[in-house]
Amino acid sequence: MYRTHTCGQLKIEDVDKMVSLAGWVQRSRDLGGMTFIDLRDRYGITQLVFNMETDSALCEKARKLGREFVIRISGKVAERSNKNLKIPTGEIEIICNKFDILNASEVPPFTIEDETDGGDELRMKYRYLDLRRSVMKKNLELRHRMAQEVRNYLSKQNFLEIETPVLIKSTPEGARDFVVPSRMNPGQFYALPQSPQTFKQLLMVAGYDRYFQIVKCFRDEDLRADRQPEFTQIDCEMAFVEQDDILDTFEGLTKNMLSNIKGVEITEAFPRMSYSEALENYGNDKPDIRFEMTLHEISGLVKGKGFEVFDSAEYVGAICAESCSEYSRKQVDALTDFVKKPQIGAKGLVYVKCNPDGSYKSSVDKFFDQDALAGWASELGAKPGDLLLVLAGDKSRTLSALSELRLEMGRTLGLMDKTIFAPLWVVDFPLLEWDEDSRRFYAMHHPFTSPRPEDIELLDSDPGKVRANAYDLVINGVEIGGGSIRIHDKALQQKMFKTLGFAPEEAEAQFGFLMNAFRFGAPPHGGIAFGFDRLVSLFAGLDSIRDVIAFPKNNSGRDVMIDSPAKIEEELLKELRLRIEQAKA
Amino acid sequence: MYRTHTCGQLKIEDVDKMVSLAGWVQRSRDLGGMTFIDLRDRYGITQLVFNMETDSALCEKARKLGREFVIRISGKVAERSNKNLKIPTGEIEIICNKFDILNASEVPPFTIEDETDGGDELRMKYRYLDLRRSVMKKNLELRHRMAQEVRNYLSKQNFLEIETPVLIKSTPEGARDFVVPSRMNPGQFYALPQSPQTFKQLLMVAGYDRYFQIVKCFRDEDLRADRQPEFTQIDCEMAFVEQDDILDTFEGLTKNMLSNIKGVEITEAFPRMSYSEALENYGNDKPDIRFEMTLHEISGLVKGKGFEVFDSAEYVGAICAESCSEYSRKQVDALTDFVKKPQIGAKGLVYVKCNPDGSYKSSVDKFFDQDALAGWASELGAKPGDLLLVLAGDKSRTLSALSELRLEMGRTLGLMDKTIFAPLWVVDFPLLEWDEDSRRFYAMHHPFTSPRPEDIELLDSDPGKVRANAYDLVINGVEIGGGSIRIHDKALQQKMFKTLGFAPEEAEAQFGFLMNAFRFGAPPHGGIAFGFDRLVSLFAGLDSIRDVIAFPKNNSGRDVMIDSPAKIEEELLKELRLRIEQAKA
Repeated sequence: MYRTHTCGQLKIEDVDKMVSLAGWVQRSRDLGGMTFIDLRDRYGITQLVFNMETDSALCEKARKLGREFVIRISGKVAERSNKNLKIPTGEIEIICNKFDILNASEVPPFTIEDETDGGDELRMKYRYLDLRRSVMKKNLELRHRMAQEVRNYLSKQNFLEIETPVLIKSTPEGARDFVVPSRMNPGQFYALPQSPQTFKQLLMVAGYDRYFQIVKCFRDEDLRADRQPEFTQIDCEMAFVEQDDILDTFEGLTKNMLSNIKGVEITEAFPRMSYSEALENYGNDKPDIRFEMTLHEISGLVKGKGFEVFDSAEYVGAICAESCSEYSRKQVDALTDFVKKPQIGAKGLVYVKCNPDGSYKSSVDKFFDQDALAGWASELGAKPGDLLLVLAGDKSRTLSALSELRLEMGRTLGLMDKTIFAPLWVVDFPLLEWDEDSRRFYAMHHPFTSPRPEDIELLDSDPGKVRANAYDLVINGVEIGGGSIRIHDKALQQKMFKTLGFAPEEAEAQFGFLMNAFRFGAPPHGGIAFGFDRLVSLFAGLDSIRDVIAFPKNNSGRDVMIDSPAKIEEELLKELRLRIEQAKA
Repeated sequence: MYRTHTCGQLKIEDVDKMVSLAGWVQRSRDLGGMTFIDLRDRYGITQLVFNMETDSALCEKARKLGREFVIRISGKVAERSNKNLKIPTGEIEIICNKFDILNASEVPPFTIEDETDGGDELRMKYRYLDLRRSVMKKNLELRHRMAQEVRNYLSKQNFLEIETPVLIKSTPEGARDFVVPSRMNPGQFYALPQSPQTFKQLLMVAGYDRYFQIVKCFRDEDLRADRQPEFTQIDCEMAFVEQDDILDTFEGLTKNMLSNIKGVEITEAFPRMSYSEALENYGNDKPDIRFEMTLHEISGLVKGKGFEVFDSAEYVGAICAESCSEYSRKQVDALTDFVKKPQIGAKGLVYVKCNPDGSYKSSVDKFFDQDALAGWASELGAKPGDLLLVLAGDKSRTLSALSELRLEMGRTLGLMDKTIFAPLWVVDFPLLEWDEDSRRFYAMHHPFTSPRPEDIELLDSDPGKVRANAYDLVINGVEIGGGSIRIHDKALQQKMFKTLGFAPEEAEAQFGFLMNAFRFGAPPHGGIAFGFDRLVSLFAGLDSIRDVIAFPKNNSGRDVMIDSPAKIEEELLKELRLRIEQAKA
């Protein structure tokens, strides 16, 4: 054993003990006859003291230690004269009588501090150094504790963690699969799972009525800022349950996590909101309900007054920003610029200042008198001192732009406190989405989602109207989980594939095993999957998932540390019977 | 909720309660005016009663239920007149007053019983039905509990579970990798990890001094009976430790598992045996020490007596089978046939019967008199009534054949009791293995294993003699885990790559990131990995790992249930810029 204690362990009670520690040199200071070194390991930092007077040779040697050298020391615990009460070991120091260098270190390419001077790319390339920073350690420790908590909670609820295969079969539905050529079956491929969906359904058919798994999933997508080609899900499924049973179970899990990990106690039930309500009131299907500022349609109040922009709009809607009536011209212009950004896409912004004196000042005074504006204010419940922000246009785009504007105002007004957790169930999603390009319906969740029984007859007459037994868990505007009650009837599943435009042979070739399974007594079942990376990052108060993943990939799906993907040996390609096509010039 | 209780829950205390249950029809019996149905779910079986007298319509309907129909029932708990004390719910039955068919079932292709009539292939194709059998449920429940136990134990010991990437980089060393073509980087590939080896070492460099992970690993090998292309490891690594610290830690884990899962208490330390001792005494590096019957070399006693087979042999060795002197001609012939099988490869078998009267009878009486045979018997500690079995030939092949013969005798004599667990550490493995074909050394474990410090100088002069700081955990002759102290010094790692015949550029291209990491303060570290599938199968008393895996693949690496691997769409191949070469005619 290289040490008797860790660098986070020794306290004032340990004074006079002979100890040995091992770790990294965090920093070193020479003060006259003394050299002080902060020794760091996973558990903390302990101050070492070398005294020129009592052992000059050792002290000279200690002065040569550079940052990030790995050393092992022995010495006696002593009380510090100037205590550092910010760290748990700050009351003591070690008077060293011996040390060995276990490994030297070159000067690291960036500082190993909470606020490092290393840019993103450098930190990714030297991820093993980046991971030494205590903020990164806290993230990975949090991730570990959360995974343990999930497992212990679900195990106590009789869930079994069952591993499903990673080498499965490719299906063209949904996102693009990563594939794995099979050497033993040349010309054939495995695929990596986008989720264990069909396997967990088969486990329900097999009678394992409470399944979960914390599991890696894979999606070969063009990566957006906060996506990774491999990501981790808490994947769950239950049999003999209805939607409410699933919501209750996983609401229990979420409350338990918030309580045990974050110390946040939520006693009341999570609010439930329909998809259409979410769209109407928040402009999107994952509302951040930490603050109100809901959307209000005012089309009825504003049309026919000669203002062409409103008159020609499918939808006119507004939000009310509290206590913002004194916004300057510059502030309002900045908001206008914000909504006109291409990714938001509004044409312009109309404002109404509800002045403290009860009067109104708007950018459309020419068309609307004080009474008209008072009507808007009343519709939005605005008080004197508030500011109304109005957007108009095509309904779906305007809802989405208003949603972005609302979030922007939430950020500006400090309404998005990261220590507050506001969970919400969004329910009653549509079953299908129409795609204008391919002129067909797509499953909004996936083809195994059950329509609501009362809507099944609409599948033939008006498929777009069919609601699904599907639900999302949203916390602070982040979609944390989603799931549904599944189809467990062979005929209904076949009908669903038909509605999605699958030829019967196609459905059989791809999902025949599942429909076969439904022939032998499939129980009613449903489930949910949580994005574990996102959940951890939410709990860590981070905006990105990258820093809760030990070795993430960059936006091109590349691991710059190990330099992967990479070319492989010709020999291996030959064994796989593959040839790489050169790009066309 | 479809039920108030599970089928394993209701007891005599529940008599008179109104309950509802849901599950599968296990079997059904019509006895005069009554119909009895055994209803099965994950938790057990409960007997349902339908009474023709009190509700003939319901009873008629119940009589039509086939095996594996999924039903939900309501009724009253009643005490059974003929109790079945073999099952926990055997004292009660449910007098049903209502039921619904939740799903019908065709007649399953094999019986859902512990002793099923389904062959291996059929069971694999309908794995979801096979998994309904209670023996399979017990296996998966055991696996779940073992995984939980590992996680809880290691977490309490301050280990962090940290996920390492699945999409990594291919390295030609070791077994063949599965590769994953990258669409975003055409012509380049990821590889699936054979183990998280380099990543866990980087975590040590990053300061996470106690890491573990229960993790899927992948190996594209021609599959032997008990191998799977994807398998699960308990992967562990520690920093600032020496070999003994690692053995102690994971001995603790193993004892805890044996105690908490199997109720087997082992208080003394696990025996430790050197690799060379294991080879000499047991003929292989994973001795089953549930029984003695060790190998003894008798070359010195037998040579030069004119028996050509012994005289020309590099090695002559024997085992002593207790109380087998009365073996018949037929039994001895069967043993001779056994050792002559091609996979064992001995030329023949010499026996010596130590007769109860103190005399000896051997197959080589012509060459060896009673005194000579008494000398052999004494060397092996044989008593009157024992049987000596002698093999001769090339040393390594003969050791291995004797080892097989020893195990065969152990099986025959009932010395391999599955309820006994005999763990053993095998230590002091050689660092390198010479391969005659390629005329180079290979790493016996992997290229990151540290030589013993005192043997480092032999790396230049006599590499084959260098011992490694490597160890295996063997239980009942099964290699459960293996690991080593790793190299943490850049220069030594480079020397090791050179010894293994890597050109410097090659080593740099493949493992540059690791050697780079060693430049920045790598601590001494080491670890171990357990084969989780094998550990579970050992605990379950099974001979194969297949039945502790929910969805295993067959010996051609094929999942016959989902029919994978399979062809993929041309479109996807094109996006990956790959072409499949046709097989040569």
